[in-house]
Amino acid sequence: MPELTIAEVARIVGGEVERGDPQRTVHGVAPLDEAGPRELSFVAEARYYAYIHASRAAAVLVARGAAIQLPDGMAAVRVDDPRRALARVLDALYPPPAAAPGVHATAVLGPGVAVDSTASVGAYAVVGEGTRIGARATVHPHVVIGRGCHVGEDVVIHPHATLYDDVTVGARSVVHSGARLGSDGFGFVPEGDGLKKVPQVGGCRIAEDVEIGANSTIDRGSIGDTTVGRGTKIDNLVQIGHNCRIGSHVIIVSQVGISGSTRVGDGAVLGGQAGVQGHIEIGAGAKVGGQAGVTASVPAGATVSGYPARPHREAMRVQAAVFGLPKLVQRLKALENAVFGRGAQGARAGSHADERDGGEPPRDE
Amino acid sequence: MPELTIAEVARIVGGEVERGDPQRTVHGVAPLDEAGPRELSFVAEARYYAYIHASRAAAVLVARGAAIQLPDGMAAVRVDDPRRALARVLDALYPPPAAAPGVHATAVLGPGVAVDSTASVGAYAVVGEGTRIGARATVHPHVVIGRGCHVGEDVVIHPHATLYDDVTVGARSVVHSGARLGSDGFGFVPEGDGLKKVPQVGGCRIAEDVEIGANSTIDRGSIGDTTVGRGTKIDNLVQIGHNCRIGSHVIIVSQVGISGSTRVGDGAVLGGQAGVQGHIEIGAGAKVGGQAGVTASVPAGATVSGYPARPHREAMRVQAAVFGLPKLVQRLKALENAVFGRGAQGARAGSHADERDGGEPPRDE
Amino acid sequence: MPELTIAEVARIVGGEVERGDPQRTVHGVAPLDEAGPRELSFVAEARYYAYIHASRAAAVLVARGAAIQLPDGMAAVRVDDPRRALARVLDALYPPPAAAPGVHATAVLGPGVAVDSTASVGAYAVVGEGTRIGARATVHPHVVIGRGCHVGEDVVIHPHATLYDDVTVGARSVVHSGARLGSDGFGFVPEGDGLKKVPQVGGCRIAEDVEIGANSTIDRGSIGDTTVGRGTKIDNLVQIGHNCRIGSHVIIVSQVGISGSTRVGDGAVLGGQAGVQGHIEIGAGAKVGGQAGVTASVPAGATVSGYPARPHREAMRVQAAVFGLPKLVQRLKALENAVFGRGAQGARAGSHADERDGGEPPRDE
Repeated sequence: MPELTIAEVARIVGGEVERGDPQRTVHGVAPLDEAGPRELSFVAEARYYAYIHASRAAAVLVARGAAIQLPDGMAAVRVDDPRRALARVLDALYPPPAAAPGVHATAVLGPGVAVDSTASVGAYAVVGEGTRIGARATVHPHVVIGRGCHVGEDVVIHPHATLYDDVTVGARSVVHSGARLGSDGFGFVPEGDGLKKVPQVGGCRIAEDVEIGANSTIDRGSIGDTTVGRGTKIDNLVQIGHNCRIGSHVIIVSQVGISGSTRVGDGAVLGGQAGVQGHIEIGAGAKVGGQAGVTASVPAGATVSGYPARPHREAMRVQAAVFGLPKLVQRLKALENAVFGRGAQGARAGSHADERDGGEPPRDE
Repeated sequence: MPELTIAEVARIVGGEVERGDPQRTVHGVAPLDEAGPRELSFVAEARYYAYIHASRAAAVLVARGAAIQLPDGMAAVRVDDPRRALARVLDALYPPPAAAPGVHATAVLGPGVAVDSTASVGAYAVVGEGTRIGARATVHPHVVIGRGCHVGEDVVIHPHATLYDDVTVGARSVVHSGARLGSDGFGFVPEGDGLKKVPQVGGCRIAEDVEIGANSTIDRGSIGDTTVGRGTKIDNLVQIGHNCRIGSHVIIVSQVGISGSTRVGDGAVLGGQAGVQGHIEIGAGAKVGGQAGVTASVPAGATVSGYPARPHREAMRVQAAVFGLPKLVQRLKALENAVFGRGAQGARAGSHADERDGGEPPRDE
Repeated sequence: MPELTIAEVARIVGGEVERGDPQRTVHGVAPLDEAGPRELSFVAEARYYAYIHASRAAAVLVARGAAIQLPDGMAAVRVDDPRRALARVLDALYPPPAAAPGVHATAVLGPGVAVDSTASVGAYAVVGEGTRIGARATVHPHVVIGRGCHVGEDVVIHPHATLYDDVTVGARSVVHSGARLGSDGFGFVPEGDGLKKVPQVGGCRIAEDVEIGANSTIDRGSIGDTTVGRGTKIDNLVQIGHNCRIGSHVIIVSQVGISGSTRVGDGAVLGGQAGVQGHIEIGAGAKVGGQAGVTASVPAGATVSGYPARPHREAMRVQAAVFGLPKLVQRLKALENAVFGRGAQGARAGSHADERDGGEPPRDE
């Protein structure tokens, strides 16, 4: 396992060492309250500055301007952005274990499969006819890849992921365990007393530097392709319907669902559990709140939230009014008493608001 | 790869050729803006008619009455319903790749397993004791099937799907990658300071012509069975709890969750991300809106939406009133000013609606 | 298959036999309407008492005080709590099939793997370097376990589950099919025009007696660990973000999502599809309603619901007021008519509430 001196840490992150011994070594990173004397820690938010003094860490990554009190022997490494500095140190201290190049004896390759000599294909992987696997790619054990796929250079595909036929994954992308790329879209037409499946014959193209979380599903196109743009990051358990066009550098948080044929512009952010209707467009740079239900297109740069999703500012104003409703009802009663006399309003304009329980949350068994 | 003349396309879909050369051949289907000169396209909605003129497709499937302008050389195939026509053409042009019959040398079969001679069992599939696999069924690589299961004729089970013990899948059904059929229901009873698992010993019976999406989960019954009726279509990442009884020709869109012991009637439609409480009944033909939270039984044929779900018309009326609340507050103030005089209402009937931010910005990490 | 006399059933559950023949045997348990003459049934809720008379079951588990009418030949076994009694009988009648100890010939074990001689490792399982598997543990076929993991005594890991590197699963825990433990957290920092992955180097520690449902995902920590406490039960398709600390005896229903670094106290209950923001705390014993959106910490013992989640009583009051809004608007109009004269209010305080459709019908493709 690699180790670094504090001086080396400072050089990697472009920071300066304050106090402590620059030649002391660290071999890992840990939170302030767990770090031991051979570990580095970091603090990004001011509310945690006070905890630095009680930590046993060898050194702490902290913002240049932060007013902190270092305990005896601890060094600070001053940087502009502790989170970005942390990412760089982690790269250096925790290089991902490199899979040995080569195809495991138990892997089953179809006819015409081309695996680069520097790529790794793990135990029990199954790769279909005509698929190409690029340089330094890692196909972990138990990955199943269909026919005619293309896995780019430096791609990592984790165990139990599935690529159906004709799926492309661009260079340096990461596909997590249980992700399903190119599964059939949900398309049926009425026939007789039931439904007939519309064959889903489009493709699924994932660009470079994409990350796809565990157990997420991205359907292939019906006709034409489903596409995910460069640098987009998709969390776990996300659903992307057929023929969606997801832009570049989009962030899609866990359990989001996007219905078919919707377009999401570059740099958009979708909060956890948001649902997006089909055949609409989320503009570039738009932000969608967690659990929002998006039922119409969202302009570029807009922030929306709630159900149905509205501009966030408006949704907040409405929400405040909603939570003020019981008081508003009191004010209305006071007016009615003043204008109509006590107890008279029911007869004039209908009964009071229905006070019975409006329902129960769906709960467990 | 098959190809068809435009005349053959017309015959398959029961349509008529207009303009163009009926003997010209097509070998694929593509969207209007992507189709090349050897591809067929289709237009189902009038708003896309205007794009036909710029397409390079050899021919276009379009409704009989549609007023369109065909570019030189393009044929139109006139039909009643372009979507249904498309489904038929796709069947003809894209026959699914047939897996070779037989059991792959690496498949592991338990004692007493019966695989029909026309069925295909792929690499590394594992099939438990006493399970039967019917004629022309395709069990893809890496499928795990438990003991005592029955896989019907022409069933397709995609890679990495799991059937626990005692699961039945009816003829022609399709189970997508990562679907889990017959997993344990979520049942516990208090014991000591914690919870004791209630053994889940019921079955899981999927009828004919069902489709189950990628990474969906259908729990086995606690005692008695969980059942899914004929022709029902289930999208990706759907959860169906123990002892649910799902009817025939039901449509369940992605990320829906149905708690245990709920019944869903024939032909019901559940929109994406809807949640349904346990021990209730969704009537036949009912429609549940996307993201709705269904906390009580829904009558047959009703349409409900929102949280808690109410009749859609009522939910829309309430929603309109909610979004009109800020203006309603203004009207109330005007009345108070008129009746009580300016600035006086706070003292009489409580303070104003709480105007502070009622919520939080979009979530992400 | 085991069978029990009714007298033995009574002894196992601490109950008394009423009517019928205590020496009659049962070999299974079934719902009232499905049970045959060699099966036991049970009734937990009074609304089902009336159905006992029509059942063919040999005997019924029922509460001591219940007023029921037994058909000829049926015995009742009287107990304090029929659900808990049922769980005990199921244990006796349906012992889980024991996997044969030993490592299947096709399993691939890395260097330094230690499998207890009483444990079972199934076909095609892959176990990484240095991992330990405890006594009587069952690792089903097609499980993939990374490097440096620890699988405790009596643990059951179902087919297709994945443990990434450095994951610990405590004694007697159950991991269902397709669950992903220790997948990378969703952590990125801006870099250039895109995002750079923050290496996720923390661990994932699951305590004893935990159940993790099918296709659920629990991310490893960024730095420091993600932890799940003793006796906690997690349903299917649940997402738990990096560095979450889930307490003991917590119940998390299907499709819940918990963002990173949130703490959930002992004994809390999260209803289905609830979403919880990151970096907050759900107090011990708190209850979160189904589909709730929790955007701020919840005190111990509190019950919250709705979006954004509020105390349940307040949320219900607000909801009732919301559903009463159309009537409230009528009352306001009546007041305006009385104070300002008919038709005058629009001019004074803005237009009426916007009555147009605020949303969309149910979504599907």
